[in-house]
Amino acid sequence: MSSTAGQVISCKAAVAWEAGKPLVIEEVEVAPPQAMEVRLKILFTSLCHTDVYFWEAKGQTPMFPRIFGHEAGGIVESVGEGVTDLEPGDHVLPVFTGECKECRHCKSEESNMCDLLRINTDRGVMLNDGKSRFSVRGQPIYHFVGTSTFSEYTVVHAGCVAKINPAAPLDIVCVLSCGISTGLGATLNVAKPEKGSSVAIFGLGAVGLAAAEGARIAGASRIIGVDLNSNRFEEAKKFGVTEFVNPKDYDKPVQEVIAEMTDGGVDRSVECTGSINAMISAFECVHDGWGVAVLVGVPNKDDSFKTHPINFLNEKTLKGTFFGNYKPRSDLPSVVEKYMNKELELEKFITHEVPFSEINKAFEYMLSGAGLRCLIRMDA
Amino acid sequence: MSSTAGQVISCKAAVAWEAGKPLVIEEVEVAPPQAMEVRLKILFTSLCHTDVYFWEAKGQTPMFPRIFGHEAGGIVESVGEGVTDLEPGDHVLPVFTGECKECRHCKSEESNMCDLLRINTDRGVMLNDGKSRFSVRGQPIYHFVGTSTFSEYTVVHAGCVAKINPAAPLDIVCVLSCGISTGLGATLNVAKPEKGSSVAIFGLGAVGLAAAEGARIAGASRIIGVDLNSNRFEEAKKFGVTEFVNPKDYDKPVQEVIAEMTDGGVDRSVECTGSINAMISAFECVHDGWGVAVLVGVPNKDDSFKTHPINFLNEKTLKGTFFGNYKPRSDLPSVVEKYMNKELELEKFITHEVPFSEINKAFEYMLSGAGLRCLIRMDA
Ligand SMILES: NC(=O)c1ccc[n+]([C@@H]2O[C@H](COP(=O)([O-])OP(=O)(O)OC[C@H]3O[C@@H](n4cnc5c(N)ncnc54)[C@H](O)[C@@H]3O)[C@@H](O)[C@H]2O)c1
Ligand SMILES: NC(=O)c1ccc[n+]([C@@H]2O[C@H](COP(=O)([O-])OP(=O)(O)OC[C@H]3O[C@@H](n4cnc5c(N)ncnc54)[C@H](O)[C@@H]3O)[C@@H](O)[C@H]2O)c1
Ligand SMILES: [Zn+2]
Ligand SMILES: [Zn+2]
Ligand SMILES: [Zn+2]
Ligand SMILES: [Zn+2]
Repeated sequence: MSSTAGQVISCKAAVAWEAGKPLVIEEVEVAPPQAMEVRLKILFTSLCHTDVYFWEAKGQTPMFPRIFGHEAGGIVESVGEGVTDLEPGDHVLPVFTGECKECRHCKSEESNMCDLLRINTDRGVMLNDGKSRFSVRGQPIYHFVGTSTFSEYTVVHAGCVAKINPAAPLDIVCVLSCGISTGLGATLNVAKPEKGSSVAIFGLGAVGLAAAEGARIAGASRIIGVDLNSNRFEEAKKFGVTEFVNPKDYDKPVQEVIAEMTDGGVDRSVECTGSINAMISAFECVHDGWGVAVLVGVPNKDDSFKTHPINFLNEKTLKGTFFGNYKPRSDLPSVVEKYMNKELELEKFITHEVPFSEINKAFEYMLSGAGLRCLIRMDA
Repeated sequence: MSSTAGQVISCKAAVAWEAGKPLVIEEVEVAPPQAMEVRLKILFTSLCHTDVYFWEAKGQTPMFPRIFGHEAGGIVESVGEGVTDLEPGDHVLPVFTGECKECRHCKSEESNMCDLLRINTDRGVMLNDGKSRFSVRGQPIYHFVGTSTFSEYTVVHAGCVAKINPAAPLDIVCVLSCGISTGLGATLNVAKPEKGSSVAIFGLGAVGLAAAEGARIAGASRIIGVDLNSNRFEEAKKFGVTEFVNPKDYDKPVQEVIAEMTDGGVDRSVECTGSINAMISAFECVHDGWGVAVLVGVPNKDDSFKTHPINFLNEKTLKGTFFGNYKPRSDLPSVVEKYMNKELELEKFITHEVPFSEINKAFEYMLSGAGLRCLIRMDA
């Protein structure tokens, strides 16, 4: 056990006091982990759209003050009662959704939607006692999706922690905590393109490019990138995207454009936009008989997916995925190994880097649409 | 070669001269098979809704005079040029959709939607010369879906003929030509329920009961039958259906009723109604994480399938199937073997029987909703 085990730790955290206002680096008290919890020293974290979305709090009930952050790499500092498979010093990735290994979902080979630890964006406290482990000058600070990685130390449920190869560089594999695994898994675990097949990727943000990386790894021979923003196309070439379609350049539906390019439709498509129109196009652009479309983007509350049912009778399949169907604890370690084996390329996703003290710059990069992932170094 | 090979055969056929009018047994001339065609002696045929639908011709462009019929068992009388894998005497099932074995669909393991021989309800002639092989007093009579089995002899493309075990009783296995295989395959080939799982079947007509038979064969422990007509429930018990839901008995959507019965949803559902509401319910009633819904029913032209896309993100899968994903030539012989091994029960689908001379009675049974399949004996 480390000397801090069982003690409150004082450290730096970036606190969001109000919606949309710059984060403030504060001295925060981090309580020790309770039953089935672990306390992590975060070394690297990165910013994802979901942080920005809940920080802006335009749609949801605001929950402030809060510590955001959910893509990160760190080291276990201490473990709470009952935690048997993690110990101080383990290298880990915290994940916004967990794996209890006991519920029906965890026991199913197909699902990763754990009944106990499935993502919950409305809960700002820990499950064990319904309280926060963070406080600033005595005031409790809300957690975010059970991870709150914008802090030098954080407390996480042990079921939300993937123990990985200690030789893996945490400043790179930390991006596997969320969007990159989501896109990669959507292709590798759900769409499953065969070698030599054609794949359309809708949306060329970090998630879509990770889906393209999955198609490259699977040996797809045509990877068609679809985005309303043609600026995305230059970067996408690095991710194996071979052809581009901007729906705005055509006066017919993009599914028809793709059907013409591919003699009837692509073998697989992966939607990574969140736009309902793209979801419908992604489904309708796959080939009769064997085409599979996978939805990844998070839709709006009032969206309705509409299509003619004959598309299903013509043997097109429609699926969706959450976190690329990866079970965080069981599967992420092997994704890290894919990187270690040089099968998976991750460096190209990290386009920016800032010290923790300049974390607000990461928000600016994302809001201006620059790059893919901004790495935040906690020690700098 | 038989003595009739190469000759026109005169025989009896039931001709539909006008939409909705009783068929008339006529002396018909059946020309010899041309390249890639075979002429069959039909021994048994049965009536399917699709015959009745096109005979009523309420939706489509009427095509008369026509010889209907597409579920049948027969024996090859003679073969045309280029036919190498069939010979006179072979026992066969003609099928309304074919398998050329050369197109992308036939070469794909997943598809059975042959580019050349896929069902075509608007074509009343043979592919080779665009003409009919039938005539009555010199007047050509249209074919129906390439089979026209309401005739003692018929001409069919060799790609639409499944050669089966000659020991199989044709008066029973003939029902495998269409609806029964469709429902059975929807469950066994597409929904693929695991042993011990729960399956909901929407629509308890012949197709839905065949889907239930598939669930029984797969070892499902709960088979929930859903139908608006409670009269269907008594018969369905013979098909392994264990529970019944009539949506009319509840004031909430049937998907909610099923979710409550099954702690969140069934593992698999198969829709066999043709109703768009049932399609949506069948999709929404499967469980998050692993549920798979399969659509079989033929929708109306203007139907729109609508659901909230979050259902896909929650890892529900939606598929459809045509002819239960069976490739007629490659796969039907093994379905016949399932019957021969007593794994598959077929007798229970045959609820009525008439001699060919009384074929119009079969239409009356179907129109009044009595029973499942009426066998028509050509020799009687
Ligand atoms: N399912 C999950 O587990 C999970 C996890 C992380 C992110 N996501 C979702 O994935 C989606 C993509 O995330 P991201 O971070 O890559 O977003 P992003 O905003 O960086 O990229 C989205 C891209 O889609 C493009 N786009 C928008 N509408 C389009 C349309 N109609 N047609 C074509 N392109 C269109 C945009 O121009 C943009 O380039 C989001 O909806 C996000 O919420 C899902
Ligand atoms: N895909 C294919 O290859 C294929 C082949 C043959 C038949 N079919 C289709 O399968 C469907 C079923 O065929 P069948 O011969 O068994 O028909 P059927 O009319 O005998 O049975 C349909 C049953 O569905 C019930 N039903 C209708 N609406 C319903 C609803 N909203 N909820 C619950 N039950 C409802 C009816 O009461 C009826 O009992 C038809 O649409 C037919 O066209 C498809
Ligand atoms: Zn679980
Ligand atoms: Zn994220
Ligand atoms: Zn073919
Ligand atoms: Zn039929």
